[in-house]
Amino acid sequence: MTDTTSRRLALGGLAAGLVAPALLKGAAAQTAPAAAPAAASQAPGFYRFKVGGFTVTTVHDGFFERPLQGFVRNAPLEEVQKVLAESFLPTEAMRIPFTITFLDTGSRLVVFDSGNGVLPPTATQGKMIQNMAAAGIDPARIDLVVMSHFHGDHVNGLLNGAGAAAFPNAEVVVPAAEWAWWSDTGNETRSPEGQRATFANSARRFAPYQGKIRQLAAGAEVIPGIRSVAAHGHTPGHTCYLIADGNAQAMFLADTTNRPELLARRPDFHAVFDFDAQMAEASRRRILDQAATDRIRVTGYHFPFPANGYIAKDGSGYRFVPADWSSSV
Amino acid sequence: MTDTTSRRLALGGLAAGLVAPALLKGAAAQTAPAAAPAAASQAPGFYRFKVGGFTVTTVHDGFFERPLQGFVRNAPLEEVQKVLAESFLPTEAMRIPFTITFLDTGSRLVVFDSGNGVLPPTATQGKMIQNMAAAGIDPARIDLVVMSHFHGDHVNGLLNGAGAAAFPNAEVVVPAAEWAWWSDTGNETRSPEGQRATFANSARRFAPYQGKIRQLAAGAEVIPGIRSVAAHGHTPGHTCYLIADGNAQAMFLADTTNRPELLARRPDFHAVFDFDAQMAEASRRRILDQAATDRIRVTGYHFPFPANGYIAKDGSGYRFVPADWSSSV
Repeated sequence: MTDTTSRRLALGGLAAGLVAPALLKGAAAQTAPAAAPAAASQAPGFYRFKVGGFTVTTVHDGFFERPLQGFVRNAPLEEVQKVLAESFLPTEAMRIPFTITFLDTGSRLVVFDSGNGVLPPTATQGKMIQNMAAAGIDPARIDLVVMSHFHGDHVNGLLNGAGAAAFPNAEVVVPAAEWAWWSDTGNETRSPEGQRATFANSARRFAPYQGKIRQLAAGAEVIPGIRSVAAHGHTPGHTCYLIADGNAQAMFLADTTNRPELLARRPDFHAVFDFDAQMAEASRRRILDQAATDRIRVTGYHFPFPANGYIAKDGSGYRFVPADWSSSV
Repeated sequence: MTDTTSRRLALGGLAAGLVAPALLKGAAAQTAPAAAPAAASQAPGFYRFKVGGFTVTTVHDGFFERPLQGFVRNAPLEEVQKVLAESFLPTEAMRIPFTITFLDTGSRLVVFDSGNGVLPPTATQGKMIQNMAAAGIDPARIDLVVMSHFHGDHVNGLLNGAGAAAFPNAEVVVPAAEWAWWSDTGNETRSPEGQRATFANSARRFAPYQGKIRQLAAGAEVIPGIRSVAAHGHTPGHTCYLIADGNAQAMFLADTTNRPELLARRPDFHAVFDFDAQMAEASRRRILDQAATDRIRVTGYHFPFPANGYIAKDGSGYRFVPADWSSSV
């Protein structure tokens, strides 16, 4: 089996297996009323909106649940539960959703971070490939992957199920500070124990893109219309991206916050995944303040789907305000 | 042309014309990568969630824009604009979305209000039929239509494009107080001038359902699992419905508020469409307080899609908190 064949099997097979039957079922429902109520399938997890002449598509990658205990390092469990309950979220576990931001500039098809990749169908995360297919986005047509940072849920999708490049025709842009840290195993002992797997994992995930990786300085332009905004702390090189076309702009906030209902409401909370919690908090306050002051439309990796809205100042913290849903793009 | 034929043409024709090509295009995208980026079509406008063993599907019917000036009768334009801006909504016009709530109890397939019905494809509202089709809901399988009140955007969809019953196999439940008012043309001179068309329009819309209309007393059970909750004022018989299965419950708020970003934030605002603004405000405060206190999941006819969430007390008003989006039902 060649790499090309296995790649086609991994991505094409998933698309055929997961998406086509849903389409066929939909088509059948139009022509022949069923005897029993239609199977209650969920709507596909994608959503589109314009930024000037650009089109953004957000794609749901499912969610992950972990114990709430220990998720916020500097607050008692009861206080964290109270903040989640104010947003009517579960309090018995920390539910973390994943939403990937795609950008079509008209000439470039871009994805920000790669999703969780191919996981067993029983997993609650790893739904990006089927939702990309529903949105009509072919991974072979992505020509630019822009990374915010190298945590597993952001880089694992660089590989398909066969271990080859999931985006075979893409250049990959990485923050230089992020690349410098995680490509030097001499930094292992200076990294939090829970993050040390990032060294080997990122080496493996970026391997098939050798020769197509471009390191980007903080604040530099990725391509016309996309500029990096350093937001270090969550990881050594964690980076947001400002998207602009004409007078319209939007910012991909990546992991500036985990769920905004928790970390935007309480920017002083230190999440367990932060590499340097003090620096992460300073970056979070700076970026959220900029988004709120300039009323910039934002997307976020762990924001509630469709992960498209605005940041409002609210008391001593901030609040995520979902944008109005539109039936047209 | 018989009534049956014209009905099939009107609904079946719309489904074939509007939905099938989208499905075909989706299927083609799976098998043959396009040379150019995929057409940036929006995701279909439906969303599902469970209430106990029941399944709720909300279906988007598009939106309508009207001048903001005059929409709130008892506040200056600038004050209304400020409230909308806090939720990052347009301030140059009042954008009113429509979302229809369906309920599958396992034995009954129910729709609450009928949508705007068939409108020219250029209209921004009237998208319910194509989004129902995307959700796999066949109007011929609806066996119960439950009305909140008789304003045009809630009853017009009772007729299909040929003027016949859009839900040919459905019983129609109406609040007795609503029926009593609008079926007696002697009330015309005692109704606000802007609402007098409701008499003739509701007579026409309910006509093909003669013999299948059941009047319901305030607080009475519609079917097991659905109970009416009087919320008079927006119209003489405006009614919400409490849905319950086991310990789970949800409430369809209908027009207790127009957009919650405006009327839940400011329950003291009197919207132009209210029949009796003082009574509408008292009902609004009572219902919102109940939803907030009991943390009941709600849907609303003019809530931002998917129109599924909770009501939180916030200062002297309330705030709509969308429920977390789930990739499964």
